[in-house]
This record gives sequence, structure tokens and C-alpha cells, in this order.
Amino acid sequence: MKIYGDRNSGNCQKVKWVCDALALPSTWIDVDTMAGGSRTPEFLKLNSAGQVPVVVLDDGRTLAQSNAIIRYLARGSALIPDDDYLAAKMDEWLFWEQYSHEPYIAVCRMQMVYLGKSQGDLDPEKVKRGYFALARMEHQLHQTRFLVGDELTLADVSLLAYTRVAHEGSFHIDGYASVRRWVGDAERALGVPPAV
Amino acid sequence: MKIYGDRNSGNCQKVKWVCDALALPSTWIDVDTMAGGSRTPEFLKLNSAGQVPVVVLDDGRTLAQSNAIIRYLARGSALIPDDDYLAAKMDEWLFWEQYSHEPYIAVCRMQMVYLGKSQGDLDPEKVKRGYFALARMEHQLHQTRFLVGDELTLADVSLLAYTRVAHEGSFHIDGYASVRRWVGDAERALGVPPAV
Repeated sequence: MKIYGDRNSGNCQKVKWVCDALALPSTWIDVDTMAGGSRTPEFLKLNSAGQVPVVVLDDGRTLAQSNAIIRYLARGSALIPDDDYLAAKMDEWLFWEQYSHEPYIAVCRMQMVYLGKSQGDLDPEKVKRGYFALARMEHQLHQTRFLVGDELTLADVSLLAYTRVAHEGSFHIDGYASVRRWVGDAERALGVPPAV
Repeated sequence: MKIYGDRNSGNCQKVKWVCDALALPSTWIDVDTMAGGSRTPEFLKLNSAGQVPVVVLDDGRTLAQSNAIIRYLARGSALIPDDDYLAAKMDEWLFWEQYSHEPYIAVCRMQMVYLGKSQGDLDPEKVKRGYFALARMEHQLHQTRFLVGDELTLADVSLLAYTRVAHEGSFHIDGYASVRRWVGDAERALGVPPAV
């Protein structure tokens, strides 16, 4: 399989982490989104939404949306709970990540790291909602080791991607002790070198 | 099962539609989100994210996030393709809906219908991205009857919710002939009375 991704994108890293964790052979093809690489005519043939990551399977079929990709790649593995309800709780986190976490925590990071904004330039509403997301994770991770219970699932893979680098978008996670503990646990469980 | 939802919310309607289509018994419990009904201490016990819809299963367990809920309720039914790749393409549309469609088309509608904004008050960037989403749907629906092929899936349920009322958020779908055709097809397939 080929992974078309931007190395700076947590959404793209999720896919690489799952391939590596499950020993699925993959070839990474760099797409520089800041230079318009996801809006070229060639790229839009792979994904008309103009977004990375996209995977091209060995038979040539394509799949986009990070959480849809990892859900497909991990089917039948221990990263998705066997129990239907627990799998649904995992899905609940995956959809929440894209609606209530990534648009604040990842977007603030993108603006500071890639667009050169300072902390004072960030939209205060985005910062507030980012902290609301961290507080909700803390609430869960104070009760359970991983987001859906005792075992690592795709919910952790997905939320780890931008939470581990939240400080690059001005978010201080020092006050979220369970989130900090979980970042280390999830990195170790996935075999990902620590971000900090 | 109990569905805690706001009748004005397309995200909540998705859950009701799936229950009705699959003849799953459900009791609807109204939550007035505009009056803060999703932020009360009682509600936050059901969903710490403070968002509707939430379902409470007959055994008391809860599940949130509209697309995670419908994915759970419809497991094993014809609304989810048997084929793993087609199910993944359905998931691609579900995640795309929450990231690239709902935040523009549903949010503009919410601002006009419930917050009393005029079309001129809308964020032009949100309007532009909403039309980009409609154009992407048109691109697909020009090729296939439903979003994942010849059969109705949860991708159609999810995208139908706000596309059918896009005009209430200033979006004109007259220029998107395949989207218009699909709205009628999906409403009929689901047994939902036409929105317009």
C-alpha cells in the first residue's frame, strides 16, 4: 500500500503508526500540503476532497479520511474491540476527535508552527474549545488507562496524534495529569518515540 | 432505547431515521439545546461532551456522536455494506461529513434559523467551504445513485440530514442537479417526508 501524507500532519502519522503496529507493508509518499501538494490535478484524482492522508491499496483502490483508513487497516486486530458496544465507544471518540479536538488543538498548532502566528494571534474561542477537549479527555483518563478501557484502541491512536504535540499550539497539558500519563502509555504501547 | 435529541438538529434526526428504518423501538426525549439543555449537570452525566444526540440503551449504557450511534444501531443491516472496502468508503463519507460538511452547511443554517443572522452576516469562508462540499457530493452523485454505489447506506443518511435543508443556511442547491436528484431518492428510500 502507498500512503500519501504530509510528515507534519498528525492525521497522516496515525496511518503510519497503525501500519507499523500491525506490520502492514507501506510506502510513504510525501505530499507538501503547505506548497499546495494536495490540490494538484493528480492529487485530486486520488481524493477529490483535496485532503491528506490518502492510501492507495495494492489493487489501486483509494481510501481517504484518517480515521476511516485506520479503521479499515485495523479490522480484525486488537486495536478494535471485539465487543460491539466497545467498538461503538471507540467510534464515538473517533468522531469526537475530528469534530471537537482536531479543529482546535491541531488547527492552533498549524497556525503557530506553519503559518508563523504567535500565541496572541490565536482565536480565543478555538483555544477555549481546545482546553474543553483536554478536560474531557482528563475526565475519562482519570477513570481508565486508555480511552475505551484497559486496552489501547484506535481511539488512543487517533487522539494521541495531536494531543502529544498540543504544546506546539500553545496548549499546556501539565495541569492534566491523566492526559500526560496516557500520552506516555499510548506512545509506549504503539512503539512511537516520545514527542517531548 | 431512549434518544435524547433536539428536533431541530439534523444530527439527531439521523438517529431517529435509522431507528424507524430498522423498526428499532425508541422513545424520543426532547433536549432544547438553545436553552442550554445539553449543558445541565443531568445531561453532562449522559455525555460529558455536552452534545446531542445521546442514546441510552435498554441496559442503561450510553452512546454519543450521531455517526457512531447510527453505525452501532445499523450493524448487520443493509445500511452498512457487507464488503469491507465499501464499508470503509462509507466511513470515509461519515468522517468527511463531520469535518468538511456539517461545520459549514449546518452551522450557517443554525446561525440563520436559530440565531437570527442574515445571509450577509455569514462568514464568507464558511459559505465557500459549504459550496465546496456540495460540489464534491455532486461529483460523486453524478457517477453513482447513492454515495457508495447503487444502494442506500449510512453515508446517505448522514449527508442527507443537513443537505436537504441547506437552503435554510443560504445554500442554493439548484445548480447541483445530481445532489437534488439524490435528496429525493434518499428521502424516498428512507421513508422520510420531503423537506421541501
